[in-house]
Amino acid sequence: MAEAARRTRGGGGAARRAERTAVSFETAKYIERNIPNFEILTEEALEIIENNAEIILEEIGVNFPDNPRALARWREAGADVQGERVRIPRGLARELCKTAPSSYVQHARNPDRNVVVGGKSLVLAPVYGPPFVRDMAGGRRYATMEDFRKFVKLGYMSKWLHHSGGTVCEPTDVAVNKRHLDMLHAHMTLSDKPFMGSVTEPSRAQDSVDMCGVLFGEKFVQENTVMTSLININSPMTFDDVMMGALEVYALNNQACIISPFIVGGAMAPVSVAGTLTQVLAETLAGIAYSQLIKPGAPVIMGAFVTSIDMNSGAPTFGTPEAAHITYGAGQLARRLNLPYRSAGSFCGSKLPDAQAAYETANSLNMGLLSGVNFMLHACGWLEGGLVSSFEKFVMDADQLGTLHHLARGIEIDENAQAMDAIREVGPGGHYLGCEHTQSNFKKAFWKSDLLDYKPFETWEDEGARDTQTLASLRVEKMLNDYQQPAMDPAITEALDAFVATRKAAEPDSFM
Amino acid sequence: MAEAARRTRGGGGAARRAERTAVSFETAKYIERNIPNFEILTEEALEIIENNAEIILEEIGVNFPDNPRALARWREAGADVQGERVRIPRGLARELCKTAPSSYVQHARNPDRNVVVGGKSLVLAPVYGPPFVRDMAGGRRYATMEDFRKFVKLGYMSKWLHHSGGTVCEPTDVAVNKRHLDMLHAHMTLSDKPFMGSVTEPSRAQDSVDMCGVLFGEKFVQENTVMTSLININSPMTFDDVMMGALEVYALNNQACIISPFIVGGAMAPVSVAGTLTQVLAETLAGIAYSQLIKPGAPVIMGAFVTSIDMNSGAPTFGTPEAAHITYGAGQLARRLNLPYRSAGSFCGSKLPDAQAAYETANSLNMGLLSGVNFMLHACGWLEGGLVSSFEKFVMDADQLGTLHHLARGIEIDENAQAMDAIREVGPGGHYLGCEHTQSNFKKAFWKSDLLDYKPFETWEDEGARDTQTLASLRVEKMLNDYQQPAMDPAITEALDAFVATRKAAEPDSFM
Repeated sequence: MAEAARRTRGGGGAARRAERTAVSFETAKYIERNIPNFEILTEEALEIIENNAEIILEEIGVNFPDNPRALARWREAGADVQGERVRIPRGLARELCKTAPSSYVQHARNPDRNVVVGGKSLVLAPVYGPPFVRDMAGGRRYATMEDFRKFVKLGYMSKWLHHSGGTVCEPTDVAVNKRHLDMLHAHMTLSDKPFMGSVTEPSRAQDSVDMCGVLFGEKFVQENTVMTSLININSPMTFDDVMMGALEVYALNNQACIISPFIVGGAMAPVSVAGTLTQVLAETLAGIAYSQLIKPGAPVIMGAFVTSIDMNSGAPTFGTPEAAHITYGAGQLARRLNLPYRSAGSFCGSKLPDAQAAYETANSLNMGLLSGVNFMLHACGWLEGGLVSSFEKFVMDADQLGTLHHLARGIEIDENAQAMDAIREVGPGGHYLGCEHTQSNFKKAFWKSDLLDYKPFETWEDEGARDTQTLASLRVEKMLNDYQQPAMDPAITEALDAFVATRKAAEPDSFM
Repeated sequence: MAEAARRTRGGGGAARRAERTAVSFETAKYIERNIPNFEILTEEALEIIENNAEIILEEIGVNFPDNPRALARWREAGADVQGERVRIPRGLARELCKTAPSSYVQHARNPDRNVVVGGKSLVLAPVYGPPFVRDMAGGRRYATMEDFRKFVKLGYMSKWLHHSGGTVCEPTDVAVNKRHLDMLHAHMTLSDKPFMGSVTEPSRAQDSVDMCGVLFGEKFVQENTVMTSLININSPMTFDDVMMGALEVYALNNQACIISPFIVGGAMAPVSVAGTLTQVLAETLAGIAYSQLIKPGAPVIMGAFVTSIDMNSGAPTFGTPEAAHITYGAGQLARRLNLPYRSAGSFCGSKLPDAQAAYETANSLNMGLLSGVNFMLHACGWLEGGLVSSFEKFVMDADQLGTLHHLARGIEIDENAQAMDAIREVGPGGHYLGCEHTQSNFKKAFWKSDLLDYKPFETWEDEGARDTQTLASLRVEKMLNDYQQPAMDPAITEALDAFVATRKAAEPDSFM
């Protein structure tokens, strides 16, 4: 069926281009940094951490429970396997990581929206995983598939977002064993940006690969990366068999995975930054090495989702200086492994898209850019420690992502940028508003918000003295009203619909 | 009188210590960076900008209007003076800047609160200059002396604020020619942190020096820096005679000045970052060189207050990526001059202490830390493009300043920080909450907010679902209730009161 659908597209670039002419919304190219990274760790500190990570792997080891296949792979590779514990001889994991590519292209169905992950690039993807949503009109509530579709639409229309993401919210009204089908269908049909696959069961990862076969053609999928999916490590040092099963499906099909500890410092890792970085490195070395044991050359991203804890309440905290330290440090460790790096995001602990949310988010977004992150999941929409996808915060954060694009451009120093003629023309006591240099440069000189308020006080007051959340709520409404679905070959739409219907009919609903 | 007052204090350290035992609120030491600066400009770009700045000084020149004394000084130093235009031969300004100290101590009346300005230090001072105040209860209104006193009290009680600042708001209910007396009196008596002097007339600068003579003793003032005051340059390239007169008073009395362009890019400087940096450098070179012509060795700070403009409305914008570029670049230029650097702050364009305000402020605070700023004026409380001092935002920003302290600590890498024993103890699948390393480190491991909310959702909802502004409003109220004036020798209080009364009686009120 997949190949049949593929053939009806005509197979040529012209046909693919025709599909997407109907409506197109502007999307910025993924960020290509023209600024240095912020290097917080000294060479000496890096070497200590790298050495300690090897000690962890060799002497303490990592667990691969309920996974005889993984244990066999490790044994064959030369590790010391006792029960579910895998001890990896010094240097072996790092050596195995060398077959992972330093960067890869993730293809979108609209090739203009392909992204490069690695090197100096930064790809921005929305929030992932919250069971709740919040908006001003409806408050906080369990997320539904209808909410999910709205977030995919907002992501499609967000200029500074390069990626449609994955579980932009958890559609709790659809059966657990079937919601991945609806989620993928939404990403594939409501957006033309790249997306993520399911990881909650190996079979759902296989469904994701198969649906991509329908969308892109099976051969294309085998030869190209069309998904980047999120494989979490159960810190400390435990590799869940379900996640490893999903990783196996993706690696064998040439699809990319983020291999990422999920750490609340002080709970799943030591309370110190250096200790946490050591554990993060040991865990990602083991996980990425394992991906290369499954298939050498499989594209992977070294991930670090790390935050601190409020030791009074036990609540995770976000946008904190300790999280920044870890994010900067892990970026250096990833670069020394020559691997793409995932971290940071619109993290906040606040219940509302208020000042707390924005301080915490801005802290995290800024450190994400400067730490050399290549793939930023959760780049917009995260609220309440990741329990909530917020509609208003989604567009607020998405607007702020524009600042990262402009920051990353660095400082131009050509003759036009030097502006010596303008300075001569204006001279002491003059002004630059009308001068030729200003006229010919102002349009592209400054980042421009599509959301924030700069109006005179009186105008702002006359218009209702609206705060950012209120402006964002109006923007959400307008974007959803303006939304137009990107064109798709009807045969592919039909084939995707049929795939979802067939798979849904194959088993009863489960909400477990 | 000043010396008499001084003598009654007993002259010894014991007496000074006794004065301040009554009540003391914790204040963090000024930040001493243990992290690198973010260096955005290449060596080549820096050299181009430095060369172009010399061209500006030599070929275009700068204006010192209505200031024959300044023109005479420049002529004598070897500049080409035509009318009010001063053209400075290549290299002369940079050479003159060499007598300015690379760092200096500003003394507070409580010596524990002395600050070092320069090198790796970062001193945080509150908002300066707004004619309006805002709080939740009273909305936006003209600032009064009562508001001013409240801000000084909040600054005194803010743990992460090292400096009491200057015009924390403009007390519009006091005559223009007398309000500096009340403002200084408030800083001197309601706080024991270092403060700023008046610059609105040379005579008011002299009053500031004289009042410091009462507070510290005249001899102490002549031998030590007890004020850091703000001298703005009228960009482009114009040095106001009133400001230069105040600078002269301060330099001759060994008191420090920030010499700072005030630039809205596209209006007072070219619309390009490199062009603006060039002009900033030329202006500060000329201003600082002039301070050293007045008195070689006078302590000065190279300032850069630069923001961009919304080219649609003409409104200044804050926390933008272009402002960040300039702040990073100007920091590099200052370090190459071996001078202390002032920039950044809690800048925002928002009318309310909402998410916009917090995004913009966090962007600016983060870049301020990483750009190597030594003196950050406006570090808390700024709202609405600087038109408003916000009570709630003051405490919100002041809380965020804690993140800068922790970020600046860098990453410890000693044996305790490496935490290898903890990692061994816990092992794969365990958790760190109860382990010895966590117990002995958690109290100082993580920055802790005194304001932000991390409570469980249900608790937060039961308590009224309060946003950050509401929490901040309660905190303002509590701080003002808890406030206790730092102890002062009654003879000094009396002498300060008498000084203010005498000076106020000497001339009629003026509101011009």
